[in-house]
Amino acid sequence: MLIDEGLELLDEDEAWRLVLPGGVGRVGVTIGPLPAIFPVNYVVVDGAIAFRTSPGTKLSAATARATVAFEVDDFDLVARTGWSVLVVGPSERVLDAKFSDALRVAGLAPMAAGARVDLVRIRPELITGRRLVHAAVL
Amino acid sequence: MLIDEGLELLDEDEAWRLVLPGGVGRVGVTIGPLPAIFPVNYVVVDGAIAFRTSPGTKLSAATARATVAFEVDDFDLVARTGWSVLVVGPSERVLDAKFSDALRVAGLAPMAAGARVDLVRIRPELITGRRLVHAAVL
Repeated sequence: MLIDEGLELLDEDEAWRLVLPGGVGRVGVTIGPLPAIFPVNYVVVDGAIAFRTSPGTKLSAATARATVAFEVDDFDLVARTGWSVLVVGPSERVLDAKFSDALRVAGLAPMAAGARVDLVRIRPELITGRRLVHAAVL
Repeated sequence: MLIDEGLELLDEDEAWRLVLPGGVGRVGVTIGPLPAIFPVNYVVVDGAIAFRTSPGTKLSAATARATVAFEVDDFDLVARTGWSVLVVGPSERVLDAKFSDALRVAGLAPMAAGARVDLVRIRPELITGRRLVHAAVL
């Protein structure tokens, strides 16, 4: 489905498949009155997005119990191809040992070194995806 | 300055220098009660971030007059290196012909085809940057 001349809307399954491999995603939160975006290294476990943060950081506080946005994308500016997926849902701190074990199996490693012992889970409620489409002549 | 064991805080000048070249950035907005993140192709003109959207889209509406987050980053997951910069400031629709001319000179092209005639400007008020740092042994 074309949502305008340059973007094709992906169906939810297709969009979710692009999220599944994990990697770098961006978390959108509100800190007081201000929006903020933080990149994280994430995995998908049991249908949820999971990442680690350090206790005491802004990201940790903002995702402890909130509704957040999570975005992944991949673009090639030269070829003018690419896609993005936006996930919105409740985030929460996870203390579940079974979930932590599943994450270890899934190979979640934070990008930054240090004591990233807070585990955050986002349960997707809205999943939307877009892909760049181009006419033959640009 | 190390903000924790794995992240170094960049000073504002250093962070802004990473934003200056333009490319793909992500805009964080609030749509009703929900956060959202949209990737855009941007340039920096006259100290402001500029990008194009299509009239009638969620991104266009959400950035017409708001305080938004804007994030750029670059990570190498294999080398475990990378940085991110977060800019927060007011966004507005731009109708200024001089600004449009400056954008053409700066070579702003939207990633998607189509009638991306809305021009949006974000004036940076907060600029923060982080860089991954690692101990010799991981």
